[in-house]
Amino acid sequence: MAVGPGTLPQFAAIAGLRIGIASAGIKKPGRKDLVVLELAEGSRVAGIFTRNQFCAAPVHLARRHLAEGQPRFLLINTGNANAGTGERGMADAAECCQRLADEAGVPLSAVLPFSTGVIGEPLPVAKIVKALPDALAAMDSNGWAAAASGIMTTDTRPKGASRELMIDGQRVAISGISKGAGMIRPNMATMLGFIATDVAVAPEVLQQLASELGDMSFNRITIDGDTSTNDACMLIATGASGAPEIGVGSTHLPALRAALAEVYLELAHAIVRDGEGATKFVTIEVTGAAAQQEALDVAYTVAHSPLVKTALFASDPNWGRILAAVGRAGVPDLNLSALEIYLGDVCLVRNGGRAEDYTEARGQQVMSQEEITIHIDLRRGDVKETVWTCDFSHDYVTINAEYRT
Amino acid sequence: MAVGPGTLPQFAAIAGLRIGIASAGIKKPGRKDLVVLELAEGSRVAGIFTRNQFCAAPVHLARRHLAEGQPRFLLINTGNANAGTGERGMADAAECCQRLADEAGVPLSAVLPFSTGVIGEPLPVAKIVKALPDALAAMDSNGWAAAASGIMTTDTRPKGASRELMIDGQRVAISGISKGAGMIRPNMATMLGFIATDVAVAPEVLQQLASELGDMSFNRITIDGDTSTNDACMLIATGASGAPEIGVGSTHLPALRAALAEVYLELAHAIVRDGEGATKFVTIEVTGAAAQQEALDVAYTVAHSPLVKTALFASDPNWGRILAAVGRAGVPDLNLSALEIYLGDVCLVRNGGRAEDYTEARGQQVMSQEEITIHIDLRRGDVKETVWTCDFSHDYVTINAEYRT
Repeated sequence: MAVGPGTLPQFAAIAGLRIGIASAGIKKPGRKDLVVLELAEGSRVAGIFTRNQFCAAPVHLARRHLAEGQPRFLLINTGNANAGTGERGMADAAECCQRLADEAGVPLSAVLPFSTGVIGEPLPVAKIVKALPDALAAMDSNGWAAAASGIMTTDTRPKGASRELMIDGQRVAISGISKGAGMIRPNMATMLGFIATDVAVAPEVLQQLASELGDMSFNRITIDGDTSTNDACMLIATGASGAPEIGVGSTHLPALRAALAEVYLELAHAIVRDGEGATKFVTIEVTGAAAQQEALDVAYTVAHSPLVKTALFASDPNWGRILAAVGRAGVPDLNLSALEIYLGDVCLVRNGGRAEDYTEARGQQVMSQEEITIHIDLRRGDVKETVWTCDFSHDYVTINAEYRT
Repeated sequence: MAVGPGTLPQFAAIAGLRIGIASAGIKKPGRKDLVVLELAEGSRVAGIFTRNQFCAAPVHLARRHLAEGQPRFLLINTGNANAGTGERGMADAAECCQRLADEAGVPLSAVLPFSTGVIGEPLPVAKIVKALPDALAAMDSNGWAAAASGIMTTDTRPKGASRELMIDGQRVAISGISKGAGMIRPNMATMLGFIATDVAVAPEVLQQLASELGDMSFNRITIDGDTSTNDACMLIATGASGAPEIGVGSTHLPALRAALAEVYLELAHAIVRDGEGATKFVTIEVTGAAAQQEALDVAYTVAHSPLVKTALFASDPNWGRILAAVGRAGVPDLNLSALEIYLGDVCLVRNGGRAEDYTEARGQQVMSQEEITIHIDLRRGDVKETVWTCDFSHDYVTINAEYRT
């Protein structure tokens, strides 16, 4: 089950970036489960990683290589997360990177590893190493759609987004893919995102964009409140388009940021739409907050409430559950009589109770839609935050209660 | 569905306390939905209330009356929570208390109101008022079992506990009842507990016991992480047993505390065992913590993880989900290589990965039981905390997704 059409876009090729896909047979024989991104010399990479303290071996190593070297390859496997694997996991991840570095004639630190799949099982290094030449031989600048499928685990569909824009008379492109169907899938983990552009971006701007855009997209979605051991989202700028470099004060930065933001949001939303068992795509907007943290606390408390989520599944405009979630979000001195809660355009709560003009029929009409906005106006400041989530269905329980196979 | 046998105990009568039950027909005609506890003059009452900022009208009023007066009556109705009802709700609660005070010839502040049931609907004051004389006429010291049923909402079974002990050669009794089948049922709210003893207890000791015992029992259980608008747990000491008053330094205090603790825990556990859709009763023990807060953070993060809870439902020893929950609990500088995770007696995680001697068969054997202990030893201090929860089943979704009827 998933919300919305979910077709892949026509991906724009990124100058200076090629993709090679091969079958290592990590979990299923014949499955194209190995994706290698090859970046032209001079490419820059920035990223954000999971804050879970139990991060997987490839997360540790990708962070280290990113800090040390000039990235030339991203090595991504599905089928095994190389998480919870201790010292051996670190050695295995390094071994895969070293073998790709040897094949390609680059230093070890030029390879960033990413793994997703079952945790606690040793990474099948030999299988991956054996498939590396195939991946390198298959390098193609039009590999995005195949890569979107290649990095899937339990996703029901591939996820991608693409944009083109003009910078100083030069056409530049952005393409990206993501995967994830729960914020955490420790047994078949987890969220990954890879976004690339062929415009040149100054390193400090690239990291700023990766953090800022990741924060307002991948860090604002939640399926079940869990964070995973392998999450990573990388932003790549090859600089091969020929357009001028975007520096801190560049007049082209706003246009680039806007286009990137669209790609980030589309990829993040695609994960929510494909959330485990999802039947609704839910936007939770908190406005009128006095501070960002209280806006986020309210938004996430509502987004994580199993009672709100099951009501969403049932298309039940159960305003009491939303109100109770707001009440336990820990906002100091919240004025309950002042705040307002809306379902779409319909006011549910005003003056500390059900709005006078609210009727179940009006609430029901909004709730029966597939895309729903819950808007909570705290009416005590001017800070606004938005998070996205999905409902909580029987299928969520079924998917997550199935014994690991 | 519920875990364990769940039969009511033989309740010991509490000298100085009588219970009157009547049918107000609040939600279902003929249902015995009104419970009145009558306390002898000189009785003392202490309690803890929900910390949810959207607390219901009766919570506000009970708190105020408790601070102002000498409690003589507890007025409890099921079928309507009088929550989310604004100014009118306050007036309605006061009106019910006033009418009972008039009937009984006591001041308004001697009546403490408690409501549980549907929220957002006006309290049917007339129905309640009409049934008050029946409740007063039915006063009986053996009303505990009927009261346990009288305060139920969606509970599948009544909940009670009772103990007797000797204090200074005098037999004293403790009896208590509780209700709740989700930590929050905003549409059919919520948790209530009433525990009474006939020993005399000094006010400061009574409040200390109410807070301390409530904290280690009702404040350590969680069904779905939500807290409700109407939660209250009251501790009553009538002093009518004839045993000497228990003061701060009393040598009898440890024995009383121990007996009360058993009653509190039994009542709190009964709520978890009757948790919505529960098929497992789960104890989460965190030991070796450096501070109480980090022990609780770890315990609750595990207890609230939908992925851990669905794995428990599936009897799946999915240690990766527990490990990932521990990793996102926000404990600073957690040493992942030092901590250990046990399922019953079986070590799951050691040295940052799956324990060497762990086998799926051993994990599976523990997980297939109806009562399961997850023990997380952080190995960085000597603080210990325990919380209790249940699993997350299809029935949870069914129960909470059903449209309000």
